[in-house]
Amino acid sequence: MNRSIILFIVGWVMRFEGLFLLLPFMVSLICRESRPWAYLLVAALCFGGGFLMSRKKPQGRLFPREGYVSVGLSWIVISLLGALPFVITGDIPNYMDAAFETISGFTTTGASILNDVEALSASGLFWRSFTHWIGGMGVFVFMMALLPLIGGSDMNLMKAESPGPSVERLVPHVKDTAKILYMIYTGITVAEILILLATGMEVLDAFCISFGSVGTGGFGVRNDSCGGYTVLQQNIVAMFMIICGVNFTAYFYLRSRRFRDAFRMEEVRWFLISLLGAVALVAVSIAERAGSAAEAAQQALFQVASVMTTTGFATVDYDLWPVPARMILVVLMFTGACAGSTAGGIKMSRIVILVKSLWNETKMVIHPRAVRKVKLDGRSLKPEVLRATNGFIAAYFAVFMISAIAISIDCSDITTDLTAVAATLSNVGPGLSQVGPACNFSFFSPFSKIVLMIDMLAGRLEIFPILVLLSPACWRNR
Amino acid sequence: MNRSIILFIVGWVMRFEGLFLLLPFMVSLICRESRPWAYLLVAALCFGGGFLMSRKKPQGRLFPREGYVSVGLSWIVISLLGALPFVITGDIPNYMDAAFETISGFTTTGASILNDVEALSASGLFWRSFTHWIGGMGVFVFMMALLPLIGGSDMNLMKAESPGPSVERLVPHVKDTAKILYMIYTGITVAEILILLATGMEVLDAFCISFGSVGTGGFGVRNDSCGGYTVLQQNIVAMFMIICGVNFTAYFYLRSRRFRDAFRMEEVRWFLISLLGAVALVAVSIAERAGSAAEAAQQALFQVASVMTTTGFATVDYDLWPVPARMILVVLMFTGACAGSTAGGIKMSRIVILVKSLWNETKMVIHPRAVRKVKLDGRSLKPEVLRATNGFIAAYFAVFMISAIAISIDCSDITTDLTAVAATLSNVGPGLSQVGPACNFSFFSPFSKIVLMIDMLAGRLEIFPILVLLSPACWRNR
Repeated sequence: MNRSIILFIVGWVMRFEGLFLLLPFMVSLICRESRPWAYLLVAALCFGGGFLMSRKKPQGRLFPREGYVSVGLSWIVISLLGALPFVITGDIPNYMDAAFETISGFTTTGASILNDVEALSASGLFWRSFTHWIGGMGVFVFMMALLPLIGGSDMNLMKAESPGPSVERLVPHVKDTAKILYMIYTGITVAEILILLATGMEVLDAFCISFGSVGTGGFGVRNDSCGGYTVLQQNIVAMFMIICGVNFTAYFYLRSRRFRDAFRMEEVRWFLISLLGAVALVAVSIAERAGSAAEAAQQALFQVASVMTTTGFATVDYDLWPVPARMILVVLMFTGACAGSTAGGIKMSRIVILVKSLWNETKMVIHPRAVRKVKLDGRSLKPEVLRATNGFIAAYFAVFMISAIAISIDCSDITTDLTAVAATLSNVGPGLSQVGPACNFSFFSPFSKIVLMIDMLAGRLEIFPILVLLSPACWRNR
Repeated sequence: MNRSIILFIVGWVMRFEGLFLLLPFMVSLICRESRPWAYLLVAALCFGGGFLMSRKKPQGRLFPREGYVSVGLSWIVISLLGALPFVITGDIPNYMDAAFETISGFTTTGASILNDVEALSASGLFWRSFTHWIGGMGVFVFMMALLPLIGGSDMNLMKAESPGPSVERLVPHVKDTAKILYMIYTGITVAEILILLATGMEVLDAFCISFGSVGTGGFGVRNDSCGGYTVLQQNIVAMFMIICGVNFTAYFYLRSRRFRDAFRMEEVRWFLISLLGAVALVAVSIAERAGSAAEAAQQALFQVASVMTTTGFATVDYDLWPVPARMILVVLMFTGACAGSTAGGIKMSRIVILVKSLWNETKMVIHPRAVRKVKLDGRSLKPEVLRATNGFIAAYFAVFMISAIAISIDCSDITTDLTAVAATLSNVGPGLSQVGPACNFSFFSPFSKIVLMIDMLAGRLEIFPILVLLSPACWRNR
């Protein structure tokens, strides 16, 4: 393994974290908190360490193994470092809990161990939500730079900008794509912050909620998540969650005025159709509880959008909803939103490919001589893509089952157990029962917390990088 | 579609059902029940109808479509006819419930709608359990005759006897294989009946419990399932469940003295290793409840063997067990036992292939130049087999999710909902919570019962035949 290249990449990521930490430092100064130096100290640590690690330009090429290890380690290292300010300021005194919270932040999960969010300092809340936004950016880097190296490249962002998955040819494109992407990402964030401020939301809330929805994270700044905001504000947040659950390729198309291509994206279409279908079903299921039809629709829209985009905000305690509504939310936890967005889960495109290939196999039995190819957006999918898709779904459930057994010791009921794993592996955040939106993950033992942290990382990095990291063979020099 | 060939096959299956119905008729006569003619009447109906349908030799060849439709329809038709005696004798007056019970029987599921099993007549109990045994036979026919037509043929029984999946070449082999297979199947059944009788079990119990364990069905004849039998009897039943969860190819090998081949079968090895691992974990988890270590081990062995082989007998109400033990049982519901047995679920060979291909993909990232093939029993698996395996697992969870939403209206908790679907789709029988071993499926609405009946059939026939049957394109003449 080429360790120098890994050091180099992780070092650069740490430098960026150092820079990012200056923002909560400023918040801390503005709010005249007692220990603003905590952020400065950790920023210096990140920047200094990162500088030392990435001083020398590395030798050799970036192979998938090094790519995977770098990305996996980067996520872990920035989480372990990013947890330090919480401990130093006293916001989250226990380091294990702080690490859980920060991994949950950077993986845009939003699962919290905090009983009382409102007790945190303003800078703590800001940094906590800001990790979602940084994590969301990281996801795009991951999708652009690494996913093309493996199968399933038809589903990632690059298809809008580049003709094929050849790495060499991609490199110049990656820079351009990344630039445009970050402009779109930042643009959406700024828009949401401004709109929320215009509705009269407090400044800290507007920033944090925007970070949480654009990064599809879900950390709130109030103990009732988004329940205390006005209906208008809730609907705005719902809209932005949906916008950020759409495959960002659509925004590339829109930007280059290829409107037809944008509206013809099958994944986006199925995402919106499934979303509306789920909203309708949930609204019917909760109609009696909600009082009026309008209220039922509004609550259903917010909760469905939140769970399906794997954000994890809530305006009501949906753990109290009837079983059909809760069951739909559980299924949405697994599906997630579009690939090419910051959402987690299995992803809509994989679901569409799965359904199409099942349909195809069925057709092939009925008309054996018909040779049918599975198509997405009018193009035939390569066998590798089909294999990677099915393999991912199978791997997803395998990890799910193993984790569910692992954490079962801490759970007093099956629903808690299953939804805690689903909510972390899909980067949703809250689950049902004891990890429902009104509860948190603090009661888990350190062992279970580690399992769930691995799940958050595995879900965020589409499982394989974490398998690579955990495999002893990866750490042996050939 | 070639309707004549379908009529012919279904007709022959009905003739057999007619013959099989003579056994409960005899039981009814021996026990001097009030309506023995019920069985005779339905037997005549089956035999007469079947005779008319299969009188003419059909034209044309058997294509996969016709094969799938015949098998799917056969299972449905014999269930709908086999339910009639229950209604006529008054054992299960409601036809919908009787149909549920009979489908559950023929699919070797063992999910019951009966609140009081002991209220049934002896002939009713006999017929109910006998459907398991007939269904188990049917599974072997299905595996031998139909699975070779699609991908995944490396996993079925024929590999012991035939060199390749070419249908033409198989036909003479199928007859031989079927003959040997039914001898083994019947031999195991007779052995279990005799052993159980030797332990002093009542005659009806010995027959029914043997049918239930050899067919991996799980209908009991007592309200406490197997809880009332002696520990020795329970252990014997557990052993026979395990024997029937093994890939029958192993018995082919043993029969032809190829002991090395038999003991080298990876699937069987992993089945036994997983079984013992699960028994150990469950035993530890229930040690406190069970009193002594021996008792914990004995209870764990029976329950794990029952759930993993998808039989569904119980000696204790495992719904009262701690969460880790229950969670392990839930996972075992999904895995099931070996392919090439009458067990349901995803099947051990698919799990082994999944784990190996994940391991392979991980290795390929670490050493990109290494070309590794996934091997089972020393032979490289074809890409189609890998695709079919992953596709099946993904399809399995897709059907699972859709069914779980569909029946959620009837459920008061998520665990009931999820395990009711898992237990029917994997042909286990009882689930947890309201469908736990001490409860039954009677509270479901007719709609949910239909969904669960489709799940039982889909699980039994490895999903695709049911998709074919449900697809409108199948019923159009090109």
